[in-house]
Amino acid sequence: MTPVGEERKAALRLGVVGHRGYADLPAIMRTLLDLSPQLGFELAFEPELADFAPDAVARLTDDTPLDALLTLGGDGTLLRGARLVGERQVPILGVNLGRLGFLTSCGPNELDDALRRLAAGDYYAEPRMALHASAVDPGGTERLHWRSLNDVVLHKGGFARVVRFDVWIDGEPIGAYGADGVVISTPTGSTAYSLSAGGPVVVPTVESIVVTPVSPHTLAIRPLVLPASAEVRVRGRDGPEELLVTVDGQVGTNFASAESLVVRRAQRPVLVVRFPGTTFFARLRHKLGWGGLADRDEVA
Amino acid sequence: MTPVGEERKAALRLGVVGHRGYADLPAIMRTLLDLSPQLGFELAFEPELADFAPDAVARLTDDTPLDALLTLGGDGTLLRGARLVGERQVPILGVNLGRLGFLTSCGPNELDDALRRLAAGDYYAEPRMALHASAVDPGGTERLHWRSLNDVVLHKGGFARVVRFDVWIDGEPIGAYGADGVVISTPTGSTAYSLSAGGPVVVPTVESIVVTPVSPHTLAIRPLVLPASAEVRVRGRDGPEELLVTVDGQVGTNFASAESLVVRRAQRPVLVVRFPGTTFFARLRHKLGWGGLADRDEVA
Amino acid sequence: MTPVGEERKAALRLGVVGHRGYADLPAIMRTLLDLSPQLGFELAFEPELADFAPDAVARLTDDTPLDALLTLGGDGTLLRGARLVGERQVPILGVNLGRLGFLTSCGPNELDDALRRLAAGDYYAEPRMALHASAVDPGGTERLHWRSLNDVVLHKGGFARVVRFDVWIDGEPIGAYGADGVVISTPTGSTAYSLSAGGPVVVPTVESIVVTPVSPHTLAIRPLVLPASAEVRVRGRDGPEELLVTVDGQVGTNFASAESLVVRRAQRPVLVVRFPGTTFFARLRHKLGWGGLADRDEVA
Amino acid sequence: MTPVGEERKAALRLGVVGHRGYADLPAIMRTLLDLSPQLGFELAFEPELADFAPDAVARLTDDTPLDALLTLGGDGTLLRGARLVGERQVPILGVNLGRLGFLTSCGPNELDDALRRLAAGDYYAEPRMALHASAVDPGGTERLHWRSLNDVVLHKGGFARVVRFDVWIDGEPIGAYGADGVVISTPTGSTAYSLSAGGPVVVPTVESIVVTPVSPHTLAIRPLVLPASAEVRVRGRDGPEELLVTVDGQVGTNFASAESLVVRRAQRPVLVVRFPGTTFFARLRHKLGWGGLADRDEVA
Repeated sequence: MTPVGEERKAALRLGVVGHRGYADLPAIMRTLLDLSPQLGFELAFEPELADFAPDAVARLTDDTPLDALLTLGGDGTLLRGARLVGERQVPILGVNLGRLGFLTSCGPNELDDALRRLAAGDYYAEPRMALHASAVDPGGTERLHWRSLNDVVLHKGGFARVVRFDVWIDGEPIGAYGADGVVISTPTGSTAYSLSAGGPVVVPTVESIVVTPVSPHTLAIRPLVLPASAEVRVRGRDGPEELLVTVDGQVGTNFASAESLVVRRAQRPVLVVRFPGTTFFARLRHKLGWGGLADRDEVA
Repeated sequence: MTPVGEERKAALRLGVVGHRGYADLPAIMRTLLDLSPQLGFELAFEPELADFAPDAVARLTDDTPLDALLTLGGDGTLLRGARLVGERQVPILGVNLGRLGFLTSCGPNELDDALRRLAAGDYYAEPRMALHASAVDPGGTERLHWRSLNDVVLHKGGFARVVRFDVWIDGEPIGAYGADGVVISTPTGSTAYSLSAGGPVVVPTVESIVVTPVSPHTLAIRPLVLPASAEVRVRGRDGPEELLVTVDGQVGTNFASAESLVVRRAQRPVLVVRFPGTTFFARLRHKLGWGGLADRDEVA
Repeated sequence: MTPVGEERKAALRLGVVGHRGYADLPAIMRTLLDLSPQLGFELAFEPELADFAPDAVARLTDDTPLDALLTLGGDGTLLRGARLVGERQVPILGVNLGRLGFLTSCGPNELDDALRRLAAGDYYAEPRMALHASAVDPGGTERLHWRSLNDVVLHKGGFARVVRFDVWIDGEPIGAYGADGVVISTPTGSTAYSLSAGGPVVVPTVESIVVTPVSPHTLAIRPLVLPASAEVRVRGRDGPEELLVTVDGQVGTNFASAESLVVRRAQRPVLVVRFPGTTFFARLRHKLGWGGLADRDEVA
Repeated sequence: MTPVGEERKAALRLGVVGHRGYADLPAIMRTLLDLSPQLGFELAFEPELADFAPDAVARLTDDTPLDALLTLGGDGTLLRGARLVGERQVPILGVNLGRLGFLTSCGPNELDDALRRLAAGDYYAEPRMALHASAVDPGGTERLHWRSLNDVVLHKGGFARVVRFDVWIDGEPIGAYGADGVVISTPTGSTAYSLSAGGPVVVPTVESIVVTPVSPHTLAIRPLVLPASAEVRVRGRDGPEELLVTVDGQVGTNFASAESLVVRRAQRPVLVVRFPGTTFFARLRHKLGWGGLADRDEVA
């Protein structure tokens, strides 16, 4: 517990993003609005939540000054919130309206308690390593860049045939991946798309970058765990094929064939609010069903 | 439904094997003994169940004449029963005292109904392909042989180092497997050890033999699905290493280094009693948790 | 060897398709044109090869009567040729201009001999099971259909999020696959995309349909080997997502969200010309490097 | 390059271990003995190499004072050498007499140059994290302990049935692994047995502990990458089963069923001699055949 709330005599400026697909969202918004005055929150809602906002609530934009961000939805909503705060060191409290998430901090039933703790500074702001990814043309010019908390994926487009990806680590060529795509992931993202593609679960405190091929045709290719300091460069070898970049499974772009995707650690982490009680392994057991039923064995 | 009971005016000679590790066993035995007179069963119990047997019950041995076999336990107990009946075409009714099995026919709550159907011949005797495996010395002499419903595994012994297995299919060498072991499985066994080692689920009606390496060092080796007519031969390449054969995870032997394991389809299948209601895929969904919780994804 | 040439006093009507990306193609075409008169070939070239065609050579279309088809390229060119002949039982001789293929019959150095054997009927026409796939709307109307020798894939589109596929076998729901896609493959296709996605190698004579998830989020989902008689139906659960169907990695279409992909065995197989000498396992060892170098182990 | 040779005016005390299975060993020994006087080596040979040793060469034991260790063989020989030096910070120069190893520093053709660089201190002593493993009884008493550079494996014995392993990380239970075994590996060992069992390749500079199940029956279990500071405890759940511990694939013991295997980082690393030229990724590409032939795809 890092008691970071002492100095905060003034209002806590709290941004709010939410996923309207959850039935619980209106009730959650009411609880939030009810508690805000007594907890000293100064609220700002993203435009999608405007109809929940009384006059006193500001509109949340990329440069709204914030002391904390509340995300109402699942891990995906928190990922979106993380992009909104960018490199700013704003702690993010995710309230999970669906099943227990890897990133969210509590469920809807704990909202009241969580908001009180947030107001009191009674939480731990867990730093999660993020990635900085760029689309770089052959001349070395950065055309686009993204910040990612989970993963950056270079993937063949819809009907594309076999693609070969050349991969460099710190400038050293490490091989040609015949594959559907290459996932470059943080430890946080290791339980997302990288896991589906056969990557390991990396505990968030192991600062590292995970490179996982998707459906590799080169059968001996295996997921790689690199130091967090590594620079990963990936380029499709076969010029005419259509390639796509996807960031945190949410945003993306088409990729010009001569372009490289260059990924390295972002300068600053994402701060995720944690309360005592649930651990990483508890979430893992629950989400992946470890110790549970998906087991082929018999007592006899 | 194959009505095979008409001709059976006389008693149905029913062998019984059971696993004493299940708490339900005594109650099950009582139900069986209570129902037997009215259903016309002539019972024979394996020696391990002798203390449940009144005087009228015979002792079950390998050559006791049988019209059907009842196994009380899990899939493992049914596998043991299948070895007891051997090539004899005796239908096996497995009552599962644990979690739903792949092979068993019903749970303890359905025992009464299942025994009545068995007596009436109101069931389907599903033929499941079996394997015949031999330990053959370099001169071609068979030292030992086994019958298997699930799988035959040639595996390195406890502290053995890396082992290389040469594998032949119908006399053609198909490669050297650097591995802990090689699993040769029926479709029935494809949901047992072969699945743990990375093999596919093969629907029992696809008559075939599955060859799956265990922890292959040769990274490009993949599970193979062969025609049921194939003869698979496996031999450890590195003479001094200790090798073991295990059959259906239950019986086995040490293997002399110059010996080959030769596996082909057994002449006759194992007959497993099926009642309407549960399908292979229903058991699969239940046992493997498909459609269930062991899923990494989030709604948002 | 099936001597099927006796009755063929008349010319052998030989269709030709080729891949212009191979440098050897012009030399191959010259050899073919030189040998044709003496071997009694009546040639028909696909439009892409028109500039190689003297006046005597016909233009090859979907309904040109054919006794055999020659494909000049790799496995991909042969797959294209197989779609051109469709259900017609025309043997296909694939000359591999690249690395040894799984489907092609010989390399460029064996062309002379292969054409003489083709003319003499001195070959074996190996039947390879094919698939018939349909896009079916909720009312049961077939919008499109395809014939496939390798595989049919239902896949999420470029930027689509997590997709859930409902899968039915013979009308029975077998589970929800959270995945990037689902590959439905013949044994022939088991060494193509299905293998990259983690599927087994199925020997072509094991008539079956292989269902392999691509990057499954549901971690316990495994590849399934079904009887050749099975009907597989797949439908995306989450309406708005963009889905694509790809056939043999070559042709495809966008998929309306309410549509189902229905796949079953095609009525007639593809006939692939085989000469004595190379076996399936020889090709497998060569292509996958089994027994080769991609091995982690050490002598000591 | 760390010039550590300046202070070494006196002889360099060089221990030598070797694997007699390599045909090159005698020639290597002659070169070593020829060069030793001029390079100022004071040699000590392990007993197995006694017949190569002139009178001036000492016998190498566990407590012979050493400035460096030379291992002649493969990675296995170096692992044995690493156990011999234990926690002492003695750099190990591995000469690979077989195929390129992950740990060895040079091949036999580079021996002359390598010994001159060793004498001159012209090398980099790469620290590789090691493990300390203990067999601990229920009362907390350590019965045995080992030091490992690659991995520690708790594995079922020969004919044992399904085993369940309970795993704790830093005292927190993380799940029950139904499996053949559990591999606890350093980054160095990630390219050894853990890789065969499906673990990722972890670059040696990512200090971490990798936990990989062997043939897990619990299908959703995945390899875990933990911080180097983690303490991993594993215990077989099913008392009567026979369990074995194997260290670096070389030494081991039977395990009493109530015992736990406790593994944490060793206090001091193993120092491996590196010369400029080959990188980790170059060795990986070579050993695993990346960018090589074991690829299923075709140009067309």
